[in-house]
Amino acid sequence: MPQLRLALAQVDARVGDIAGNIDLVVAQCHAAAQAGAHLVAFPEMVLTGYPIEDMAYRRSFIEASQRGVRDLTQRLLDEGLGDLVVVAGHLDSAKAATLAELPDRLGVPKNEPTNSASVITGGRVVARYDKHHLPNYGVFDEFRHFVPGDETQVVQVGGIDVALAICEDIWQDGPSAAADAAEAGLLIVINGSPYEAAKDDTRLELCARRAREGDCALAYVNLVGGQDELVFDGDSLVVDAAGEIVARAAQFEPELLVVDLDLPAATAPMPDPSTRFHGLRVERTVVSSEPFEPREPLRPEVAERWDDAGERYQALVLGLRDYVAKNGFRSVLLGMSGGIDSTLVAAIAVDALGPDRVFGVSNPSAWSTDHSRSDAAEQARRTGLTLTTVPIAPIFDSYQEALHLDGLAEENLQARIRAVIWMGLSNQHGHLVLACGNKSELATGYSTIYGDAVGGYAPIKDLPKTLVWELSRWRNAWAEQRGETPPIPEGVITKAPSAELRPGQLDTDSLPPYEVLDAVLDAYVERDLGTAEVIAEGFEPDLVEKVVTLVDRAEYKRRQYPPGPKISRRNFGRDRRVPITNAWRESL
Amino acid sequence: MPQLRLALAQVDARVGDIAGNIDLVVAQCHAAAQAGAHLVAFPEMVLTGYPIEDMAYRRSFIEASQRGVRDLTQRLLDEGLGDLVVVAGHLDSAKAATLAELPDRLGVPKNEPTNSASVITGGRVVARYDKHHLPNYGVFDEFRHFVPGDETQVVQVGGIDVALAICEDIWQDGPSAAADAAEAGLLIVINGSPYEAAKDDTRLELCARRAREGDCALAYVNLVGGQDELVFDGDSLVVDAAGEIVARAAQFEPELLVVDLDLPAATAPMPDPSTRFHGLRVERTVVSSEPFEPREPLRPEVAERWDDAGERYQALVLGLRDYVAKNGFRSVLLGMSGGIDSTLVAAIAVDALGPDRVFGVSNPSAWSTDHSRSDAAEQARRTGLTLTTVPIAPIFDSYQEALHLDGLAEENLQARIRAVIWMGLSNQHGHLVLACGNKSELATGYSTIYGDAVGGYAPIKDLPKTLVWELSRWRNAWAEQRGETPPIPEGVITKAPSAELRPGQLDTDSLPPYEVLDAVLDAYVERDLGTAEVIAEGFEPDLVEKVVTLVDRAEYKRRQYPPGPKISRRNFGRDRRVPITNAWRESL
Repeated sequence: MPQLRLALAQVDARVGDIAGNIDLVVAQCHAAAQAGAHLVAFPEMVLTGYPIEDMAYRRSFIEASQRGVRDLTQRLLDEGLGDLVVVAGHLDSAKAATLAELPDRLGVPKNEPTNSASVITGGRVVARYDKHHLPNYGVFDEFRHFVPGDETQVVQVGGIDVALAICEDIWQDGPSAAADAAEAGLLIVINGSPYEAAKDDTRLELCARRAREGDCALAYVNLVGGQDELVFDGDSLVVDAAGEIVARAAQFEPELLVVDLDLPAATAPMPDPSTRFHGLRVERTVVSSEPFEPREPLRPEVAERWDDAGERYQALVLGLRDYVAKNGFRSVLLGMSGGIDSTLVAAIAVDALGPDRVFGVSNPSAWSTDHSRSDAAEQARRTGLTLTTVPIAPIFDSYQEALHLDGLAEENLQARIRAVIWMGLSNQHGHLVLACGNKSELATGYSTIYGDAVGGYAPIKDLPKTLVWELSRWRNAWAEQRGETPPIPEGVITKAPSAELRPGQLDTDSLPPYEVLDAVLDAYVERDLGTAEVIAEGFEPDLVEKVVTLVDRAEYKRRQYPPGPKISRRNFGRDRRVPITNAWRESL
Repeated sequence: MPQLRLALAQVDARVGDIAGNIDLVVAQCHAAAQAGAHLVAFPEMVLTGYPIEDMAYRRSFIEASQRGVRDLTQRLLDEGLGDLVVVAGHLDSAKAATLAELPDRLGVPKNEPTNSASVITGGRVVARYDKHHLPNYGVFDEFRHFVPGDETQVVQVGGIDVALAICEDIWQDGPSAAADAAEAGLLIVINGSPYEAAKDDTRLELCARRAREGDCALAYVNLVGGQDELVFDGDSLVVDAAGEIVARAAQFEPELLVVDLDLPAATAPMPDPSTRFHGLRVERTVVSSEPFEPREPLRPEVAERWDDAGERYQALVLGLRDYVAKNGFRSVLLGMSGGIDSTLVAAIAVDALGPDRVFGVSNPSAWSTDHSRSDAAEQARRTGLTLTTVPIAPIFDSYQEALHLDGLAEENLQARIRAVIWMGLSNQHGHLVLACGNKSELATGYSTIYGDAVGGYAPIKDLPKTLVWELSRWRNAWAEQRGETPPIPEGVITKAPSAELRPGQLDTDSLPPYEVLDAVLDAYVERDLGTAEVIAEGFEPDLVEKVVTLVDRAEYKRRQYPPGPKISRRNFGRDRRVPITNAWRESL
C-alpha cells in the first residue's frame, strides 16, 4: 500500500492576526518538511483565527484573508516548500454559483462569507472546500456568519485519495458518506473545537465512527489556545479505517504530530459528478498519482491524557495565559481574601504567567478574620507572587459619613471599595484585574456587582464551588507528586466559606450547602430541566424553588460579568442566552 | 364582495408571563367582540412574549405554552367568545413529520421548538402554522431556537380565504406566493418586529409589495413594548390588494385596530396538496363559508406618524418604562453631572415614569463647574424630579491617602467613587441605576468602566452624541408646542461637552469634534466599512485610524455595559458581536 507521512499542526492561531498566523503556518511547514512529511494539515480558520464572529461581515477582512491565502501560497514556494501539500483553513467568499442559489431577503445584502479550507501545493491553490454543516447551537453562530458549501473535495496525493471536511461536517451525516462514495483512503478533518469536560472521549468515538463509515483513515487536527470564552484543547488525532487510534497529540499544548500511514491506492472510478451525497457533490484533483518512496515508519506517538481534574485545571491555565498575552497585558492583579476562590485563581495565575507577573491585594476590613490575612500571606510566600495590603476602614468611614448605609447596602459597599482600589492600581500599573467568582456564585448572584465581580477576565467562572475545592486539592497533589511545595495552604481548602462582609457570616447563611446547590444547578442550568424535573431527581421542593429563583433573578449580573473560559457543557455566556426581563417562574 | 371586520391587537406581551398574556388576549378579544369584529389577530409569540431566547429549549416552558393554548381556547369558549376567530402566536413543539425529516447530530438532542400561530374558534384550535423562514442575522437567532414549518394554512372565514404568515416569512419569498396560489383574499402576518429608525417606511413598502404579489389584502400586526435591548413599536397596518394603505395603528402604544374589509369570496379550487410553493405546502380549513351579515363600515383609522426625532425619543421612553415595570422596579436613580447626556436621560426618565419616581444625584468634585451644578438643579426644578447632592472630595482624599494615583487612574477614581455612591443608594432604596453613556462614548471607550458605566439599564446607549443634542432640542420644542416648560435647560445644549475630571477638560481634548466622529462611526460601526472605505468617503486618514483603533480597543468595556434600547440599524449588543481578543488592525 502507498505510504503517506502526514503532519498535523496543532497551533495557537490568533484571531485577526493574519500576518502572524501566516508566519506560524510557514514555520510549521518548515518543521513538517524537515520531518519528511508529504502533507501537513492546519486547523479550521488558521489564517484568521477562530471564531471571528461578526468580523466575517467585514469586506476588508474577507479580502485580507483572501490576500493571506495568496501570500502564503507564494511564500511556501519561495521558501522551498513547494513540494509539500498544505491544507489550511481560512475565511473566504462564496463562489458565484453558490450565491446565485441563495434566497433573496428584502433590504439585507446576501451573506457571502465561507468557512473554507484550501489545499496548497506547487505555488497554487489546487482545491478549495467550503464547510458544509454550519453549527448554530451552544457557543456557535455559524448560520449567522457563513454560507454553506455544497461540494466535497478529494485530492490525490502520492497515489492516495484524500477527502476533506471541516469540524461540524463530521458531527452530522454527509462528508463521511461522500468520502466513502469517493473511496478515499484518508479523510482530513480540520477543526476549531473548543474544550469541554470529557470532550476528548466524545471526539475519539466520533472520529472512529466516521472512519468506519467512510471506510478510510481519519486525521483530526484541532486548534490549541484561548480565545475569549473558549479554550481549544488541541487533542489532534489519527484513527485507521477500523477506528483504532494510531496517534494522538497532547492536550493544551502546541504540537506538530507526524505519523506514517499505509493507505489504499486510489483506484476507484469517481462517482457521476452530478450525484450528491447528503447534499455534497464530489470534486476531484490529482496532485500526484505516483506513490511516494517508502520510508522507515516513525514510531507513532499517543500522548498521555490528563485526568478529569487535571484537564480542567490546564484548560483554565491556558485560557488565562492566552487572554493575557493576546490582549497585550504583562501582569494580573487580583483581590486575595484568603478564601478558596481567590486562592485557586492566584495558583492558576502563577502557573499561567509565573509569580513575577501576579499581584495580589489584600483589603482587610473589620470583619476579616486573622486566618484570612495569614492564608493570603502564606500563599504569597509559597508561590512568590507579590502581595500588597490596603485596609479599607478609613475609606469605608468616609462613605458612611455621607451615606449611612446598612444591611446589604453596607455589605456591598465594602466589596465595591475593594474593587475601586483594584481598578485604581490596575489603571496606574497596567495590570489586568481578575474576577474570582465561581459558577455557583455566578448562578445564584451571590456576589457584588461592581464589587468582587469587577475584572477583565474571570478564570473560574465556569467552575462550580465543589470543583473549586476538587481542583485545589488536585493542584496540591500534583505539586506533591513532583516534589514541589503545594501552592494552596491546606486551611483554605478545609475552612467554611464566608464572604466576611459582616461578623461571623457564612455562605450557608444564604445558600444551601454547596454539594446540594451544585447538584441542583447542574440539573437546572447545565441540563435545562424544569423545577418539577429537578425535584423528581430527589431534591427538596423549597430548596429547588429557592435556587431556581436565585438563578433567574441574577441574569442581569451575569450579563455584566467578565468573560472566562468555558469548561462545562453549558457555560454562562455563549452557551446559555436567556432574557434579563423574564417573568417566567415555574410553579410547583 | 363578502365583508370581514378585522381587529389587530397591538399589545405589550410580557416574556415568560403566560398567564398574564392569556388575560391580555382574552381582554382584547372581549373588546374586539364588542366592536363587532369577526376575526382578531395577535402578534408573534404573544402567549410567551418575544424573544424568549434559550427559554425555547426548556421542555417545561414549551409544555406551559402548549397548556396556555388549551387554556386560552377553553376560556374564550367559556366567556362567550366562541364565535370569534382568534389568531395568536405561541411557542410549540414540531410535528412528528417535521422532526422525522431533520438531520441527526451526534450527541445533541434534536431541536424541536417551533414559532407557531394557532387559529382558535368554537373552542378548538382549527389550524396551526409554524414559522417557515427563521431570521438568524442582526438581533435574531431563530435558527438556534426553532425548527422551520413547511406548510402554510388557509382558513376560510365568512366565505373569505385567509392565509397566515409570521414576520420573517414576508421578508423572504414564499408565503405571499403560497397565498397567491391559494387565491386567498387576505394574508394575516403576525409579528415581533423591533423598532429601528425609519423601519416603518420599510415595513409599509414591504407589506404593499407582498400584497400585490399575493394579489390579496395584507394585515400586519406587531407587538408593542420594551424587552431588554428591543423596543417593539407597534405600527400595525392593513393594505389592500393594490398595496394601498387602509388603516394603521399608532407607534409605541397598545391599540386595538378595527377595520372593515370587502374581500373576494373564496371560489378557487385549491392547488394539488402535494405541490409546494417556495417549500410550503398549502393546507385548508373551512371555519365558515357563508358571508357575514354586511354592516355599516367603520371609518378607517390611519394614525399620525412621529417625525424622525420624535420616533426615536418615544422608543427610548417606552424602552425604559417597560424595563422598569417588567423588572419590578418602582424608581430610577441617575448621576446628574449637568452634562447633556444625563440631562437627556433625566428627561426621558421623567417622561417614562413621572417625576416622583426619578432620583438624581449630583456628586460635585473640585473640577465641577458652577454651571454644571446649577444646570442639574435647574432641571430638577423644571421637571420635579428629586435631586440630592453628595460631594466626593472627602472620599477621594481617603482613597488617595492609601493609593496616590495620578493621571487617568486619578480621573477614573472620581468616576468610580460616584458609582459606588449611586449603587449604595440603589441598594438601600431599591432604585434602578441608569447609565447615561451615549453611543459615541460607548464606541470609543470614552467612559470609566465601573464608574459612569454602571447601571442596570442604559437609555441612550444607541444614540450618537449628535443625536443626543438633536433629541434634546426636539424634546424642548415638543414642550413648547404644547405650552409646557422645556425640561432641558438651554445652556446644557449649547455648552462644550466635558467629563470634568480635571481642570478645564473638554471632550475634544481626546476625541474629534462629534459631528466628524459620529460620521466616521456611522461608516465603521453601522455600515461595517473598512478603514480604506471610510477614508474614501472623505475623512482624514489619521483621524479614521485613531477612531477605528479606539473602537476596536473598547470592546471589553462594551461587553460589561448595561443593556439599552436599540434604535439604530446596528446597535452595540445583539446586532454587533465581535471578539474582545482581536489582533485585527486595518493598516492603510
